[in-house]
Amino acid sequence: MTTQVTIGEYLLGRLQANGVKHVFGVPGDYVLRFYDQLVRSSIAHIGTTREDTAAFAADGYARCQGLGALAVTYGVGALNVVNAVAGAFAESSPVVVISGAPGVQEQRSDPMIHHRFGPFTFQREIFERITCAAVVLDDPLIAFRQIDRALQEARRRSSPVYIELPRDQVDAPGTPVPQEITARQESDPDALRESVEETLQLLTKAQHPAVLAGVQLHRRNLQDALLGFIEKAGLPVAATLSGKSVMGERHPAYVGVYEGAMGPEAAKQTIESADGLLMLGVNPNDVDLGIYTAQLNPNVIVRAIYDQVYIRHHRFQNVNLEDFLQALSDAYPAPRNSWVRPAAQTTFEFPQNNQAMTTQRLIQRIDIGLTPDMMVVCDVGDCLFASVDLRVHERTQFLASAYYTSMGFAVPAALGAQIAFSERRALVLVGDGAFQMTGTEVSTIARLGLNPIVIVFNNAGYGTERHILEGPFNDIAAWRFDRLSEVFGPLEGYDVQTEEQFEYAFTQALGLTDRPAILNVHLSPNDPSPAMQRLAEHLKNKVAG
Amino acid sequence: MTTQVTIGEYLLGRLQANGVKHVFGVPGDYVLRFYDQLVRSSIAHIGTTREDTAAFAADGYARCQGLGALAVTYGVGALNVVNAVAGAFAESSPVVVISGAPGVQEQRSDPMIHHRFGPFTFQREIFERITCAAVVLDDPLIAFRQIDRALQEARRRSSPVYIELPRDQVDAPGTPVPQEITARQESDPDALRESVEETLQLLTKAQHPAVLAGVQLHRRNLQDALLGFIEKAGLPVAATLSGKSVMGERHPAYVGVYEGAMGPEAAKQTIESADGLLMLGVNPNDVDLGIYTAQLNPNVIVRAIYDQVYIRHHRFQNVNLEDFLQALSDAYPAPRNSWVRPAAQTTFEFPQNNQAMTTQRLIQRIDIGLTPDMMVVCDVGDCLFASVDLRVHERTQFLASAYYTSMGFAVPAALGAQIAFSERRALVLVGDGAFQMTGTEVSTIARLGLNPIVIVFNNAGYGTERHILEGPFNDIAAWRFDRLSEVFGPLEGYDVQTEEQFEYAFTQALGLTDRPAILNVHLSPNDPSPAMQRLAEHLKNKVAG
Repeated sequence: MTTQVTIGEYLLGRLQANGVKHVFGVPGDYVLRFYDQLVRSSIAHIGTTREDTAAFAADGYARCQGLGALAVTYGVGALNVVNAVAGAFAESSPVVVISGAPGVQEQRSDPMIHHRFGPFTFQREIFERITCAAVVLDDPLIAFRQIDRALQEARRRSSPVYIELPRDQVDAPGTPVPQEITARQESDPDALRESVEETLQLLTKAQHPAVLAGVQLHRRNLQDALLGFIEKAGLPVAATLSGKSVMGERHPAYVGVYEGAMGPEAAKQTIESADGLLMLGVNPNDVDLGIYTAQLNPNVIVRAIYDQVYIRHHRFQNVNLEDFLQALSDAYPAPRNSWVRPAAQTTFEFPQNNQAMTTQRLIQRIDIGLTPDMMVVCDVGDCLFASVDLRVHERTQFLASAYYTSMGFAVPAALGAQIAFSERRALVLVGDGAFQMTGTEVSTIARLGLNPIVIVFNNAGYGTERHILEGPFNDIAAWRFDRLSEVFGPLEGYDVQTEEQFEYAFTQALGLTDRPAILNVHLSPNDPSPAMQRLAEHLKNKVAG
Repeated sequence: MTTQVTIGEYLLGRLQANGVKHVFGVPGDYVLRFYDQLVRSSIAHIGTTREDTAAFAADGYARCQGLGALAVTYGVGALNVVNAVAGAFAESSPVVVISGAPGVQEQRSDPMIHHRFGPFTFQREIFERITCAAVVLDDPLIAFRQIDRALQEARRRSSPVYIELPRDQVDAPGTPVPQEITARQESDPDALRESVEETLQLLTKAQHPAVLAGVQLHRRNLQDALLGFIEKAGLPVAATLSGKSVMGERHPAYVGVYEGAMGPEAAKQTIESADGLLMLGVNPNDVDLGIYTAQLNPNVIVRAIYDQVYIRHHRFQNVNLEDFLQALSDAYPAPRNSWVRPAAQTTFEFPQNNQAMTTQRLIQRIDIGLTPDMMVVCDVGDCLFASVDLRVHERTQFLASAYYTSMGFAVPAALGAQIAFSERRALVLVGDGAFQMTGTEVSTIARLGLNPIVIVFNNAGYGTERHILEGPFNDIAAWRFDRLSEVFGPLEGYDVQTEEQFEYAFTQALGLTDRPAILNVHLSPNDPSPAMQRLAEHLKNKVAG
């Protein structure tokens, strides 16, 4: 062994080899030695105000870049990211959680060390429940292998992993791994061939075949493959809400977001009346299926996920999504149908004089303002439901916690996304309640000179809940979000009551290049989007039992 | 059975019977039905901006009131409180976590429901690691018993408990419990007698006996018992940092906070030179023992904790702290020594013209300003270390996360504490880094018309870490904390650079009765308190290995 690479250095090197150029987090004494290595490496540290926002930022970064990472201290740091990491797990986002820890020696000799809340195994045991791999690097002999395996799992399963690094191991030299583990799970060739043949038969026989595209295509970076297939096969496509923007939404093949009875009629019509339905990378969760209002015929469905294909009521194992899509595309015959071109845009006059802002008009105006260099990062609540009507230009330009639906995702995720995609500008849609949770992370965005536009859908409280079950608990304090520029910056704030004010503020914000803008858009508490009205009806029944 | 009390009603009734008049939290659809019962009960709901701040508030409330509670939704709500609840566990604070959950039926039929991150047992399994009891109320037959047992455990062990309430069980009638479980663990009379006799012998034989008082006295509400014993026995007393203020700090018997080599010399001298040392309710953790700089002779120590007494190298089981203290007090002979009265106060001139504010002068000025109707709620960092020199008037008037040391504790804990002790006013000491984590909870404080005074020790970054290992990661964004009044309120803000400005602002703030004040006190990054300098030396060695 000629090399004396330390465990910390190896971890940083492997992160970098996996495309990680930034690590988010808040320092603390158990992780300080690793931070010291971090700032001396070529990976940049992005300090956030809190640990959970570091995790949301790493999640946004991972969705754009393929892998994201955060580094926090033991206990008080790591336990603050549990929710955000569980969200990344539920949403298939590959986030690497690096937690410092007391040294191996300290753990033996100093049982009542600060930041401790129980046996030293408990933190790992908690993270085992919200990650696909959890390792503790307490043995230099196997540490490099553990790092390789964890990062490989994160990428293969597109899920978070947990790496605990006791502080006395950071500078310990590890044992080099003989050769890199790169085994990729290959598709079973027979299962692949058979599943493709059967799919072809089902789809080409159908009078009205259609495709429903889901979030796994995004996580597997298969947007180009999807587009190639669609253009070859000439099929109409809808996306699930969590898969929204996996395909450019102005493409003529695209019919909108499918959400069962909750979504737009055109998408519902296309998907539910299909007599051959190809579901690509769709998670069958309640949000993507319109809180169980989906009316789908299982006898005409082919559903391909990461490593399996379901056709009607049988299943093929060991068929990779990428291989399946490629083989299907290669074998697909020329199209019989051509897409129906969308009707010419109806005239949209904006702003109208002295008109108070409404949710629908707000979304329509934003839709027109979207340009190909923007991405939309959307929080939970009516901004998410209403955004069904936004047509983003490019694939992967819509990021949201659409299934786990954790409030407070958008502002910090936009920080991560805009660092990952430095050439793109984030348009953040966020409710007033969600902004109060994590919105002050705009402070970090401003400090770094990034320029997202944050549009606060300020409907004076927890709007979604208000429409399910009203009570005083849905009221929250009124914040002048636009005045946060008095507290930190540089940052421009705008108070928006009317359409004219919005037009002015939006135009000004678009002109800013070196700082973020916050538009505090006042909406009536009684102005839910059509999608939210439908959702609330369904949830109300669940709450009322 | 004539009664048809529902599970939700029973839970609320039992909380109220245990002194809980307020429940903190953020609503969400899985907990909405319980919220509906909550607001129709005589318990008040206190909405916070985030879930973790609700948990810190409940912790502060519990420390003042004997029990605190919060109610949150499943997944996104509950997983956001993991750190704060782990802190309550580490600090022995009885907090009841009520988490809504999908209905029992939904869990069976709708596996991919929103907010889900894994098997439905995982959330309970996470909380099992940070609470002393975790129950899921999915069976009306035993739900009432589960509630009784959980609340009893919370009080008996002074620790958090977790109660998961599936939404379809909230309105389910439960089965009445035949009789309330009230069994208190009695002391073993022989062990009690023997341990008291031996303690008496050890202490009365000593030339310089002394008492070290810890946090468990506070958690067991034994402050009066301590005072009675001290006044009868005439012994000098020091407190641990986490036990600070368990005794009024201006009492002539009190010698200060003992923290090994890190604390003030008088306390170190009294405790380390004692030839008979009685440690009452002291947790042997690293913070309370001065990061292992304590020099204590195990051959002269009697240490009584919740249910055990250690004398030198042997142990008595089943001896309750309260029984031990009472029996010892009853049997103790009249004092031989009298306390040394503290030297007359040296003159303290404040403010001095054009003098920039320093950490030491700030603490000295606050010390003089403390009145018996105030309580100090202190965050982590130099404000905590420096506060060793604050002498609070009454017992239990100093609240801090002194052992778990979670940044962001103080502002939300002050919310809870001031609601619990409505006749007291909170003085909040918090660093700039910690304030950026949870300080916007002042919004809720302002909305409720409470009047704490928040003093931000603004030393431009993570000061404690800066003194352990300096790096760019210790820099944070500069906030004009005093201008938060532009964003929410009513609230008064003051920017303080000099002693004169502090005097003005502090005087103004003391005059406010209906709103909080924030004093943004600028300190040099190179102005650590003496205690922090000593701490940093020790931690530096740990980090450097």
